[in-house]
Amino acid sequence: MSLREILTSMLEQVDGAHAVMLMGYDCMAVDEVRRGEPAFDVQAMAVEYATVIREIRRTIEVVGAGAMEEMTITTTNASMVLRILNDDFFAVFVLSRTANQGKARFLLSARALDLIQSVE
Amino acid sequence: MSLREILTSMLEQVDGAHAVMLMGYDCMAVDEVRRGEPAFDVQAMAVEYATVIREIRRTIEVVGAGAMEEMTITTTNASMVLRILNDDFFAVFVLSRTANQGKARFLLSARALDLIQSVE
Repeated sequence: MSLREILTSMLEQVDGAHAVMLMGYDCMAVDEVRRGEPAFDVQAMAVEYATVIREIRRTIEVVGAGAMEEMTITTTNASMVLRILNDDFFAVFVLSRTANQGKARFLLSARALDLIQSVE
Repeated sequence: MSLREILTSMLEQVDGAHAVMLMGYDCMAVDEVRRGEPAFDVQAMAVEYATVIREIRRTIEVVGAGAMEEMTITTTNASMVLRILNDDFFAVFVLSRTANQGKARFLLSARALDLIQSVE
């Protein structure tokens, strides 16, 4: 399965999902698939978060709280679930407020290995 | 109910919770209650996150994704649920990996107004 196929399959399994993307910490989206029209710039947000994730990962290591696995951010309009894949990549689900966040979290975890292998 | 009483009540309702704290964006804990011994410096982590939250809130506003409400970070050892209360304060639940994260999220939301009123 190609990266695009994996991302598309993930997106289609979550009602109310706006986008799924595979991102590098260099703030570049490796690939992404979208559906519908979120009322904001999804990629700009993901790019900004890449910087924040670097900071959070560093903090977690400094205080000895293990390794970062996942971050969820909920706003009045949307939510984002980010999953760390390895030292190079993370994956992001952008969701409407009504979408099933648990399903998105499950898929990011369940497909993590497939996502990594698709870019190796 | 005093702030300390509210925080204590919240902590006692979540099995596996290490701490509940009310924080200012100036990185000062207004008050906190703890239980057991997390294997890392809870307050150092919360203080670092105050900076990160400021950055994330700014990003969310810039891209037009509404107002930030909540952030959850999961590591291999622990998880933290942070809820924005207003422009001055946020509240944090620090949990073990086995704790009920949904209950912590519910309590942060349900007690948000009580927490704000206790420091006004």
